[in-house]
Amino acid sequence: MRIKTALVGYGYWGTNILRNLIENPGCDVVAVCDSSEKQLARVRARYPHLPLVRDLESVLRSDAEAVFVVTPISTHHEIARAALAAGKHVFVEKPMTASVAEAESLVAEAERSRRRLMVGHTFEYNPAVTRIREIIAAGTLGRIFYISCKRVNLGIHQRDASVIWDLAPHDFSILFHVLQETPLWVSASGRACIQKGIPDVAFVCMEFPSGVMAHVELSWLSPSKLRNTTIVGSQQMLVYDDTQNVEKVKIFNHGVSYKDPETFGEFQLSYRTGDILSPKIDNREPLGLEIEHFLESIRSGTAPRTDGRNGLQVVRVLEAADASLRSQGRMMPLPQA
Amino acid sequence: MRIKTALVGYGYWGTNILRNLIENPGCDVVAVCDSSEKQLARVRARYPHLPLVRDLESVLRSDAEAVFVVTPISTHHEIARAALAAGKHVFVEKPMTASVAEAESLVAEAERSRRRLMVGHTFEYNPAVTRIREIIAAGTLGRIFYISCKRVNLGIHQRDASVIWDLAPHDFSILFHVLQETPLWVSASGRACIQKGIPDVAFVCMEFPSGVMAHVELSWLSPSKLRNTTIVGSQQMLVYDDTQNVEKVKIFNHGVSYKDPETFGEFQLSYRTGDILSPKIDNREPLGLEIEHFLESIRSGTAPRTDGRNGLQVVRVLEAADASLRSQGRMMPLPQA
Amino acid sequence: MRIKTALVGYGYWGTNILRNLIENPGCDVVAVCDSSEKQLARVRARYPHLPLVRDLESVLRSDAEAVFVVTPISTHHEIARAALAAGKHVFVEKPMTASVAEAESLVAEAERSRRRLMVGHTFEYNPAVTRIREIIAAGTLGRIFYISCKRVNLGIHQRDASVIWDLAPHDFSILFHVLQETPLWVSASGRACIQKGIPDVAFVCMEFPSGVMAHVELSWLSPSKLRNTTIVGSQQMLVYDDTQNVEKVKIFNHGVSYKDPETFGEFQLSYRTGDILSPKIDNREPLGLEIEHFLESIRSGTAPRTDGRNGLQVVRVLEAADASLRSQGRMMPLPQA
Amino acid sequence: MRIKTALVGYGYWGTNILRNLIENPGCDVVAVCDSSEKQLARVRARYPHLPLVRDLESVLRSDAEAVFVVTPISTHHEIARAALAAGKHVFVEKPMTASVAEAESLVAEAERSRRRLMVGHTFEYNPAVTRIREIIAAGTLGRIFYISCKRVNLGIHQRDASVIWDLAPHDFSILFHVLQETPLWVSASGRACIQKGIPDVAFVCMEFPSGVMAHVELSWLSPSKLRNTTIVGSQQMLVYDDTQNVEKVKIFNHGVSYKDPETFGEFQLSYRTGDILSPKIDNREPLGLEIEHFLESIRSGTAPRTDGRNGLQVVRVLEAADASLRSQGRMMPLPQA
Repeated sequence: MRIKTALVGYGYWGTNILRNLIENPGCDVVAVCDSSEKQLARVRARYPHLPLVRDLESVLRSDAEAVFVVTPISTHHEIARAALAAGKHVFVEKPMTASVAEAESLVAEAERSRRRLMVGHTFEYNPAVTRIREIIAAGTLGRIFYISCKRVNLGIHQRDASVIWDLAPHDFSILFHVLQETPLWVSASGRACIQKGIPDVAFVCMEFPSGVMAHVELSWLSPSKLRNTTIVGSQQMLVYDDTQNVEKVKIFNHGVSYKDPETFGEFQLSYRTGDILSPKIDNREPLGLEIEHFLESIRSGTAPRTDGRNGLQVVRVLEAADASLRSQGRMMPLPQA
Repeated sequence: MRIKTALVGYGYWGTNILRNLIENPGCDVVAVCDSSEKQLARVRARYPHLPLVRDLESVLRSDAEAVFVVTPISTHHEIARAALAAGKHVFVEKPMTASVAEAESLVAEAERSRRRLMVGHTFEYNPAVTRIREIIAAGTLGRIFYISCKRVNLGIHQRDASVIWDLAPHDFSILFHVLQETPLWVSASGRACIQKGIPDVAFVCMEFPSGVMAHVELSWLSPSKLRNTTIVGSQQMLVYDDTQNVEKVKIFNHGVSYKDPETFGEFQLSYRTGDILSPKIDNREPLGLEIEHFLESIRSGTAPRTDGRNGLQVVRVLEAADASLRSQGRMMPLPQA
Repeated sequence: MRIKTALVGYGYWGTNILRNLIENPGCDVVAVCDSSEKQLARVRARYPHLPLVRDLESVLRSDAEAVFVVTPISTHHEIARAALAAGKHVFVEKPMTASVAEAESLVAEAERSRRRLMVGHTFEYNPAVTRIREIIAAGTLGRIFYISCKRVNLGIHQRDASVIWDLAPHDFSILFHVLQETPLWVSASGRACIQKGIPDVAFVCMEFPSGVMAHVELSWLSPSKLRNTTIVGSQQMLVYDDTQNVEKVKIFNHGVSYKDPETFGEFQLSYRTGDILSPKIDNREPLGLEIEHFLESIRSGTAPRTDGRNGLQVVRVLEAADASLRSQGRMMPLPQA
Repeated sequence: MRIKTALVGYGYWGTNILRNLIENPGCDVVAVCDSSEKQLARVRARYPHLPLVRDLESVLRSDAEAVFVVTPISTHHEIARAALAAGKHVFVEKPMTASVAEAESLVAEAERSRRRLMVGHTFEYNPAVTRIREIIAAGTLGRIFYISCKRVNLGIHQRDASVIWDLAPHDFSILFHVLQETPLWVSASGRACIQKGIPDVAFVCMEFPSGVMAHVELSWLSPSKLRNTTIVGSQQMLVYDDTQNVEKVKIFNHGVSYKDPETFGEFQLSYRTGDILSPKIDNREPLGLEIEHFLESIRSGTAPRTDGRNGLQVVRVLEAADASLRSQGRMMPLPQA
């Protein structure tokens, strides 16, 4: 049975979501909603057969079973909550909400209404990240020492949110997913170079219960787009470069073996570098896999992998990192889930 | 007139220094000193004509005018101080000393003895760094926003010093040289993954009086060697990758222009990316240029560019960063020179 | 006034053409034709509003003013000729036809019917190639010495055509466009590795009236996709790598200056390498620009840039190169246009 | 017992050979010969203890057991022949001689004098090439389909030899070594862009008895240095890029499987690309390994791997390729060894 879906918000990312909904044989699009007539005209030119509406109320009253919320962050909570309350399953773009309080409210509403709430942490459905998770779980890298991430581009400055709220959801969701843990603390330093009060470059540090250190560099100011995740383990190092078409993932074999020193001065380490392997990565579109997962969770009645609690975890660290950034890099402790 | 030189310490880097001394037509090597017979045998095989000695005293008593100290860090102060006291000009490898106190002692001794004291911050003689300094001075990048550095490899663990003392001297000397300022504060987080008590990965943050933020990632645990310095300015971004044979330096033209908002909601930014230019970099060996600069400072009686005070500045930030690393990333304020 | 268009053939490339027709505000799609019900179902799923037909006759009888022929090569001539005869303007995919005789027939029919005939040499509308043509025309590279092209991938073997007919149309149209001349002769060596009688790797050589030598390597057997054009001139070298997202075009400044020897033994050359510049390339989709050019040629009544004669030139060299390939690399002379 | 060696010719490559002789514990240098006082001064500055001579006679009369001939190509035959006649073992740089006749003369003289004659095909001692030979011998690539080589730089024009004589010895010796066969025919097209009569760009084609096609692109006119060898097999493709510091060799797994068509239209091919592996390559200096091999062949009295007959094979194909280049790309048949 095809699931009836509605899309709220036809901006850059909404365009991609609509294309995937159209191509997915398991659903129908019963409404596309945007407050801008210009955006609706773009839908009409491409898909003249789709029903268009300008207000959320029409969506809530429609026979849509699932609503995709792809609007500015500040509106996520209100729209998603209303949709849940109207009995819809809800997919909401990342970050799930603009605060921990809002995130907790959504999680509660989803439980109350017994509807699926899923957050669009697309990277968790990216075949490269899925493969990395498998590689780590298999112990191929050995014990994880540290992870270094870089996500920079020449970005659109948000009027009301720092670069952390804009870019870090990607890295945080990747980190928490591949490590299967959330940090003990987070700290962040940065600078508002262009607009007063809106940090546009940030260096974020965190430590995980397993001892893993992670660092994330974020910036809207780089004319060269970089998306890099480097995972250093005791046996191998893995580099994930999302800007590459081929060799997205590379595994560098190496070895650091050491003996505990028996007497003073006997300490010895031996190093070697080895082969480099770039495993073939499935090239299916992550967004398509993500949407399919959401539809499947509706059909099966089971919680999606990136459910409201998962979205809440990310929002919690975002809020703490942003607070640290605004208080001179203070280390912010975090509750464990 | 050819300057008489002596080398103390024939390890990996001493080998390179000796080769450059041999090739330099402005000096003679009158003694090579190492406490290991094995190392002296290596010299003998290559240059059977060179006088070899096993103790520092012989060097101090020789007619060498200039002594190159290329020994473990912990011995720098003692050897360099003795050589200055014996009336020699002294070149000491980076970092100049193992503490600020030692560095201050050396600077004082050099002034007292009226001899040249130079620290081997090789990168300040690297044609790529020289070119970067010129580019920044000319305003080509616009206002500098931030600098991000990465220096990682599969490194030899030091028995008694963190990765900061080993690798950061390069980045700190590059940063202070191209910016022509030293930081207001430094903080560092990291982890000792292999040997208890010896941090082998570190993330270092600092802020400069001009407002520039800098971040340096250091690690001995990466099987892939990276040496990267990214300088983001308001007009252009410059990337310096020292592992490249060609295109060591790349300049990315871009633009972020903005108008101050007149009324709420009018805020507008416009972005563009542009051409990428990789200027031809002189390929002379930095070490040869550095040694030539030292010899020239002896001949002319003027202070070398990387003199004792310059070496002291770097040691000061190394000591503070290492202390921060060992106190949970505490922000360490620094005196301005 | 919006031009009424029809598409014949909804395979891989037809899918891209239809998407561009849908997005182009200057035309309407009045028919999509494919003999396969499966392909038509793909159109229906994406664009339920489009009229679908299974036979060419319906297209010819429709009110379409322009027909896009995106079918297998062997059918190009028959379909395009019928469409021209029916008074339609015709866009036909590259290579225009399967033989010189067919190409001449199409050109004649287009002239007789006074309709626009355009061949889809997409690269001639690629902003990178447009920029390269401008750079050469401006004399920036100096005198062109030679051009080396490589176009390899893991390709679909055609049942009835060599790798030359499949891949060389791209390189030939690029070469003839940027040089604004066609070759004096062509020769080709190669091998049929997989299927007897169907060469799947070829090395093609040609010489142009200006003296320029060009070489094209083609293969369906390479698991790594390469699309590279290297143009070596007396002042600069240009490298065009179509698989790159950034730095598609790079210009290497260099110099070879020489004096004519006055006496025997005085001959001297001096060399230098210089800066490398990667100009920003407009990132509009070449196919969209190509289709717009075709629509504009219909509106204005002027010949498109890649008209039938242009298509004929390419087919002429393809036919000669294929003949050389099958006769041990014999040099095949070519008439000048 | 240490072998007494002499070096004739202290140019660019002689400098590298001398350094390796000095470092090799199995030999002594008893004479360095060069007709230029300037070059001898360079030796003296670096190694004041070495005996220097200006004429070949002094070398022939010396107690050297082995002579390294590193002079211009046109002088190889005369010097090497005289040294063999004087009872010396001879190492001669590539290409072994300037003609087949000279090569045959040297081979005969070496046999007559019962001395070792070795040609400096350094790449056959390069650990990357050794590894590639092993990979091919193990069948890892499957059946070899074709090999494409590119060797271009901004090169010194020879006054009297084409780019083929200068650069092709590298590729020819690599090809013959990894394939363990020599070609059936060779053809070459090219152009003399800078100096009349001295072709400086060439495209060389050849076919081997096994059916393998090889193509070699050579040029002195490229400001960007490329050394690339791509070997395409039925199971995997191997790319060897000698300009890379890491990932010199990359193996691309792929597959082309096909069934013979049972009925018309049933023909089917299936393709897949797979993992990419970059095996760790031993980083010892090829020249050092080559010299050690020569010394070992003297000690053991066995023929070196790259003996006179090996050198003759390469000269034979060089002469034929150069003749083809000068006769419009005529296919030149070659005798099989």
